[in-house]
Amino acid sequence: MTETAKLAKVVFQPSGRRGTFALGTPLLDAARSLGVYVESVCGGRGICGRCQISVSEGTFAKENLTSSAEHLEGASEAENRYASLRNMAADRRLSCQAKILGDLVVDVPTDAQTNRQVVRKRAEARHIEPDSAISLVGIGIDEPDMETPRGDIDRLREALATKTGLADLTFDPILLPQVQSILRKGKWRVTAAIHQHLNAPPVLVALWPGEKEAVYGIAVDIGSTTIAAHLCNLQNGRTVASAGTSNPQIRFGEDLMSRVSYVQMNPAKLPDLTRSVRDAINALVGKLVDDVGAERADVLDATFVGNPVMHHLFLGIDPVELGGAPFALAASDAMVLNARDLALDLNPGARVYMLPCIAGHVGADAAAATLAESPYSRDDITLLVDVGTNAEIILGNRDRLLAASSPTGPAFEGAEISSGQRAAPGAIERLRIDKETLEPRFKVIGVDEWSDEEGFTEKIDSVGVTGICGSGIIEAVAEMFLAGLITEDGVIDGAMAERTPRVQARGRTFSYVIAEDGVEISILQTDIRAIQLAKGALYAGVKLLQDKLGTYRLDRIRLAGAFGSYIDPKYAMILGLIPDCPLDGVAGVGNAAGTGARMALLNRGHRREVEQTVRDIEKIETALEPKFQEHFVNAMALPNKVDPFPNLRTAVDLPPRDALPEVGNSGGERRRRRRRSG
Amino acid sequence: MTETAKLAKVVFQPSGRRGTFALGTPLLDAARSLGVYVESVCGGRGICGRCQISVSEGTFAKENLTSSAEHLEGASEAENRYASLRNMAADRRLSCQAKILGDLVVDVPTDAQTNRQVVRKRAEARHIEPDSAISLVGIGIDEPDMETPRGDIDRLREALATKTGLADLTFDPILLPQVQSILRKGKWRVTAAIHQHLNAPPVLVALWPGEKEAVYGIAVDIGSTTIAAHLCNLQNGRTVASAGTSNPQIRFGEDLMSRVSYVQMNPAKLPDLTRSVRDAINALVGKLVDDVGAERADVLDATFVGNPVMHHLFLGIDPVELGGAPFALAASDAMVLNARDLALDLNPGARVYMLPCIAGHVGADAAAATLAESPYSRDDITLLVDVGTNAEIILGNRDRLLAASSPTGPAFEGAEISSGQRAAPGAIERLRIDKETLEPRFKVIGVDEWSDEEGFTEKIDSVGVTGICGSGIIEAVAEMFLAGLITEDGVIDGAMAERTPRVQARGRTFSYVIAEDGVEISILQTDIRAIQLAKGALYAGVKLLQDKLGTYRLDRIRLAGAFGSYIDPKYAMILGLIPDCPLDGVAGVGNAAGTGARMALLNRGHRREVEQTVRDIEKIETALEPKFQEHFVNAMALPNKVDPFPNLRTAVDLPPRDALPEVGNSGGERRRRRRRSG
Repeated sequence: MTETAKLAKVVFQPSGRRGTFALGTPLLDAARSLGVYVESVCGGRGICGRCQISVSEGTFAKENLTSSAEHLEGASEAENRYASLRNMAADRRLSCQAKILGDLVVDVPTDAQTNRQVVRKRAEARHIEPDSAISLVGIGIDEPDMETPRGDIDRLREALATKTGLADLTFDPILLPQVQSILRKGKWRVTAAIHQHLNAPPVLVALWPGEKEAVYGIAVDIGSTTIAAHLCNLQNGRTVASAGTSNPQIRFGEDLMSRVSYVQMNPAKLPDLTRSVRDAINALVGKLVDDVGAERADVLDATFVGNPVMHHLFLGIDPVELGGAPFALAASDAMVLNARDLALDLNPGARVYMLPCIAGHVGADAAAATLAESPYSRDDITLLVDVGTNAEIILGNRDRLLAASSPTGPAFEGAEISSGQRAAPGAIERLRIDKETLEPRFKVIGVDEWSDEEGFTEKIDSVGVTGICGSGIIEAVAEMFLAGLITEDGVIDGAMAERTPRVQARGRTFSYVIAEDGVEISILQTDIRAIQLAKGALYAGVKLLQDKLGTYRLDRIRLAGAFGSYIDPKYAMILGLIPDCPLDGVAGVGNAAGTGARMALLNRGHRREVEQTVRDIEKIETALEPKFQEHFVNAMALPNKVDPFPNLRTAVDLPPRDALPEVGNSGGERRRRRRRSG
Repeated sequence: MTETAKLAKVVFQPSGRRGTFALGTPLLDAARSLGVYVESVCGGRGICGRCQISVSEGTFAKENLTSSAEHLEGASEAENRYASLRNMAADRRLSCQAKILGDLVVDVPTDAQTNRQVVRKRAEARHIEPDSAISLVGIGIDEPDMETPRGDIDRLREALATKTGLADLTFDPILLPQVQSILRKGKWRVTAAIHQHLNAPPVLVALWPGEKEAVYGIAVDIGSTTIAAHLCNLQNGRTVASAGTSNPQIRFGEDLMSRVSYVQMNPAKLPDLTRSVRDAINALVGKLVDDVGAERADVLDATFVGNPVMHHLFLGIDPVELGGAPFALAASDAMVLNARDLALDLNPGARVYMLPCIAGHVGADAAAATLAESPYSRDDITLLVDVGTNAEIILGNRDRLLAASSPTGPAFEGAEISSGQRAAPGAIERLRIDKETLEPRFKVIGVDEWSDEEGFTEKIDSVGVTGICGSGIIEAVAEMFLAGLITEDGVIDGAMAERTPRVQARGRTFSYVIAEDGVEISILQTDIRAIQLAKGALYAGVKLLQDKLGTYRLDRIRLAGAFGSYIDPKYAMILGLIPDCPLDGVAGVGNAAGTGARMALLNRGHRREVEQTVRDIEKIETALEPKFQEHFVNAMALPNKVDPFPNLRTAVDLPPRDALPEVGNSGGERRRRRRRSG
């Protein structure tokens, strides 16, 4: 006895997108199907609270519908839990939980929208010796005559081969329809662009009448959250413009694995994911060339880096093999492709260079970052870490270089943290706790003053305190540890409730309240647990590579990526996120992957270098190593259960070490298990 | 004072295509804009009579219009002339002359339609040693493991490079999205197709799970009238299916130059011409693979030949430079292209080999015919002629080979001939004249019996006698010459009217009536003049090459193309269409261009051979040679004013030679000039 599915109209504001949906559809699914951006980091479990919306009540004549909050199914258990825990405003609902029961006009709040706009990637200053794959050659040829009736492009090709000494020069067939008019327009003098990539045959790829002054290339870092692109002059090697945008694939899944599972569940949608990232890149290119008064047709080359899933999705490859062991890449070696075959709107003859991937979880972005930092040309030992949902770890020097990835999860990006959010205005990014009063003071993105400084109160109203971002969480947990609010094993000490009202009981655990005006921002025991899991995984991966390398000496730590640029090395070390090392040897290196992409764009020697490095690098699969689990357990403690951190102890006054009950046998664990079986 | 254009609805039957047109639009233009096939060979001058249509009168409820013959503008002077001369049926109109004045339902008669269907190209029997550019390699690779996390396609490429010894093997990026599923489906055993063209790097272009038995290639001859395609097994070299179709570009212009001028007048329509020929080829491929139970994806390679205009239009190149001196080709050398870049629906990794063009008027079809006949590997001297609107002429032996083209015009294809038509049922293809009675007897395509044989009268009713095709005109003029009906200078002798009523005065000249039942079929003085101009141009081109070669010795004549296959060598020689030569040394070689295309498809040695031949061949531009005009004037006579034709005279009893008044100073010419100025 089936019932015909009833339908309801839903309009999302401020975008104005609308659609008709079967009753019972979760609102978040409806939003995604329309391409409406609603953030969600917990995978629709009603935990992260990012997907809040409100219902606009009333009759909307233009839409011919009556919208009511009652047209959403009542709150689920998860939603009620979140609402009580986080003081969710009464008119807000979690769109992942709320199911459509009737016509609706839905308002996606601006605080959800703003996160989308913040892109913090920029080109790092770096001199790159220009020797790009594109060279410009001015040349004149004879007018055709009937005595030697050879094709215009064949005569041109031959003249170019003679002038450049490139006997095996060929031409891109894309030139066939244009060559005659260009030659005639230039009165038989033209400028030719020749693409020469390492050992591939040289190819004539573009042609202009008369003289052509400048041609450009783009270097693109496709992050799962952000796409950053740099426009570079291929002759002088200068980066002339940079721009970034959100990766529109976010609407198919917040993190890598949710996108992989989206494709697994919806194989027919793979082209949508591919198209969305290519479209975003095309839009970025439009902006970049506009910025410098150039044209798309002036862009002749492009390099791309990204993690393996981004790499595969950009190329139109189904990433599902990357979702499970043995994490098989479809393609890992460097490749030269035609930009037009990737639907990139550049010069029709433009080429693309894909930097090589290192392994199934260590992508071309890690290869590019390695190129940018070149630990393989140094005697001292470098640890290079790019922290994201997966941490990519490179360790070694000119003698040996090792690579691995470690599944840190999205905690460092603010997901799985009750008050967490991405680095965006309103997020707490710095935090200190007074060891006497146990009072916090903090800095919020978008306001220059700290919370205890003059002017903060006036300015904070415009941005609000909306959450806590990755660097803020690191500092909060580390400061709580230094202040004695949490033990070495990461447990919030309930006894401290006697000293400060900020330590509050939450069921059987405790929390620390940072702010209560407007949105409550607290560090919960589960938040600390998430950070411990993330940093423990990262540290265990590093330790494993140190085991393999046969030395625990470490001279330099380089933290790549946005997260690495914003965290304070000292706090990262107090937390035990990175191993012990002279503190002045630790530095953020910004968008090292983007720097590597620019290097490969502008200098072919760097292409050879990165290809050789990726061939030589030793890939360690952490999941296969029996010692990983042991390292991981030890790394759950702050900073570590067994490692002494001598450099850190000379710089920071750490709390005394105590005996830590074995993780996995803690009282909390036992209690929970008993409850389930009871 | 402009008047708003009024519109009329026009429906063409039997196709049912319909459109709305401004009043005053010629009906032929309306038909073409809708893609309705209406033959026309005279360029809309009201001369050829091929574009006849009739108007269906009455009110058509379904179409909501009333159609009337009065909705076409009254007959033009040209149309009246044609109608009186050729006894056009009262209900017929010439669509090139008739302009739309109101709503119409137009019937395109079946006799116009049938011409479209007749395609006489087939694969000539020829053994070709198989050594194609595609090789199949079966290979197994290890399953991926986490210890060596290299891309599946990179491991496959490397294993293939090792197995085949092709160190510089690359892969077509089209394989990227497929490689993982194919490897897994084949349980890590696959069959790879590798493309290896001469000195280009080898490329992995296709992949199948497990074993793959047969792969195919197509060899295509793109004629301006007909497209012929052969499907060949790339492993054993066998031609397994052949098919032909009309070139749909005909609707943009009957002959080459009318298509060039169409593009010149309508540059935005160039993609339409390109698309139409590619679509036709895709349809042919569909038919060919269906015939043998294969699939499009089994087609891995393709070769194409055609004259320079067909070559350029197929590649999407504007052919206008070919329309005037110096007839500059955009591209002439052989090329390897991706089939997908030409919108060919074959295997996505399929390659295309374009045979080289020799000169602006001597195309890849002539190069292919030269490959098929290989005069360059013989001691005796060969003349190879492909007669079309342009005759392509190759002369020489292993010591020297010369090439030229000569503008014969479309007379040999039945155009510019009052009763002319293409080789199709109803066309007179053979003709004899009794020297005593001066009575003709003839053979019609579609009827086995000659017109004086038993059974002819009964059978002819079903096809009718509709016109005279190229081979029929050759024989008619030659037989009229042998019978004394025309003089050596090609003038129909009015004195013969005393001996036969078939010689009739037409104004100041005479005609010879072949048939009068139904359609009148006559040879007019202007018809003979057209044939003289065509054969004179061809002969002059040959003579010029003989001058250059330094010998008039000729051992073999090879007549390529449909026309060459159907004309009788003896009559061609009587007419002076070809030079004197032992009669048994003359042979038709059918679709030699198609044979050459198959040779280049199936054997890479033949590609090298044709490329070398085209490089070495000496190109002679007849228009630049001062002696061309003299040769042309002499060649207007039957068989020739100065050349003795000793071999022909031993075989045929030619009329005695007489003094010919100089062409250009003939009485007729003078009279006409006087009339114009008067």
